[in-house]
Amino acid sequence: MSTQHHLLQDFLDSCQTRIDEELNRCLDRSSASDRLLEAMRYSVLGGGKRVRPALCLGAARAMGHTSDNALVPACALELIHAYSLIHDDLPAMDDDDLRRGRPTTHIAFDEATAILAGDALQTLAFGWLADAGDFAAQTRLSMIRELARASGHCGMVGGQAIDLESVGQTLTLAQLESMHRHKTGALIEASVTLGALSSGEASAAKVNALTEYAKALGLAFQVQDDLLDIEGDTQVIGKPQGSDAARDKPTYPALLGVAGAREHLDAQLNHALHSLEDFGPEADPLRAMANYIVARTH
Amino acid sequence: MSTQHHLLQDFLDSCQTRIDEELNRCLDRSSASDRLLEAMRYSVLGGGKRVRPALCLGAARAMGHTSDNALVPACALELIHAYSLIHDDLPAMDDDDLRRGRPTTHIAFDEATAILAGDALQTLAFGWLADAGDFAAQTRLSMIRELARASGHCGMVGGQAIDLESVGQTLTLAQLESMHRHKTGALIEASVTLGALSSGEASAAKVNALTEYAKALGLAFQVQDDLLDIEGDTQVIGKPQGSDAARDKPTYPALLGVAGAREHLDAQLNHALHSLEDFGPEADPLRAMANYIVARTH
Repeated sequence: MSTQHHLLQDFLDSCQTRIDEELNRCLDRSSASDRLLEAMRYSVLGGGKRVRPALCLGAARAMGHTSDNALVPACALELIHAYSLIHDDLPAMDDDDLRRGRPTTHIAFDEATAILAGDALQTLAFGWLADAGDFAAQTRLSMIRELARASGHCGMVGGQAIDLESVGQTLTLAQLESMHRHKTGALIEASVTLGALSSGEASAAKVNALTEYAKALGLAFQVQDDLLDIEGDTQVIGKPQGSDAARDKPTYPALLGVAGAREHLDAQLNHALHSLEDFGPEADPLRAMANYIVARTH
Repeated sequence: MSTQHHLLQDFLDSCQTRIDEELNRCLDRSSASDRLLEAMRYSVLGGGKRVRPALCLGAARAMGHTSDNALVPACALELIHAYSLIHDDLPAMDDDDLRRGRPTTHIAFDEATAILAGDALQTLAFGWLADAGDFAAQTRLSMIRELARASGHCGMVGGQAIDLESVGQTLTLAQLESMHRHKTGALIEASVTLGALSSGEASAAKVNALTEYAKALGLAFQVQDDLLDIEGDTQVIGKPQGSDAARDKPTYPALLGVAGAREHLDAQLNHALHSLEDFGPEADPLRAMANYIVARTH
């Protein structure tokens, strides 16, 4: 576990460095408005664990590729994630003033600029994929199609809409999972799919295994988020006083109890790891990512 | 002029019908959230002159193509336009309650749903282009690249940011034109470019001529908008009491006077028509569109 921990740390560090460098480089070009570009850079370059890019690079490596080919799709995924956070934080949505310890974009700039920065980051993600010259045209189109599917009204944005409608509602476990599968799961799945696509390999069995991994991981990620929301805030296990609970949002602990949510988390983790059983050490970063997501404390 | 008027009416009617049918058909698929899809449909299918789709279809025809090939890119352009209007109307932006005589999306639904509907429509535009199977992969990528360039921070969204920054400022004519070239011009240009790309023809001279046409048309469109904002509201020519003036936004009439703005409009119209001089009757719809834009009263 300690070796795996170091492997993960090395892998995540290297991902973060490469992703941050690439994002910084690519977001340093001209813009019609300096202030808009500044807001885009503020939102994207303000830290973040780069989980989705790391999954993308990890999936590429699991398919046997260690080159930097997958960097552009990895960055495109991060742009989509960043745009969704900006819009999610807006007063009309979650109305959050802080993210990663810094003022959210609409606080640091203004609401209009935040809306536009989110819009422009989404556009840029698709533009970057279309321009990703290392890949065949068909591969780029597959990536664009997958990213659009995962982030649009049948994926992430659709999940955010379900989330809005669910405030104050009692959901079944199936409904809660459907919401998260759309809201966060779809983009996590796309991260792995884009990584697999970037390898150019067409082994359907391997891609399916990675997709299974990603699905389980996405759910585990959300269960852990819900648990952290309780435990991280109050240090009192089982007392739902986190911000989601305060907003009357449905959560796993509210539905399953804390112990039940932990069991659910473990089951998803095991399923994620099990999905990778036909892979060798080339999938170790993905295995380590799964363990990391369960073990993370923030 | 009367013949041209009929030609235009036929062309516009046929464009509107085909575009509305296609949008209605394609926006009738599943979504994670019914309410979100309803908001998307409300925003896209609520009328509108479909100027950008008509320009796209008109440019395809000017390149010798009369098929329905260009319908998908034409619809993608309309999705981008619709998303930009939803976000533009938000309280944090222009704070408009009415559009085309109906409540704006955030009034008819709510602000959060409006933000998400705009986001999802943008995503969908890129997804549709990636899926536009009638075109070669490289053509689809060119369209996606062009649409991203025209609508992102170096195009439309960048122009909206300049617009925000310009409220209360005195701009030079060059600055005002730069703002409009980004804010509305870029997407109008892209409409023509996507239409030309859809024909599969690579005649650079023709594409350049169409781009010139589109640039002039985009500016003419905006000058006319500014003039209508004055004249439409107050019926008193030369008295700037329209909503832009009320918001202290820079306009052509404010900068050039009403007579000067009219001269500027005529010059752009002439330039647009002049750009088409090497085309035969196949470009008549584009010629008629130019005259229509200058003659329109709303």
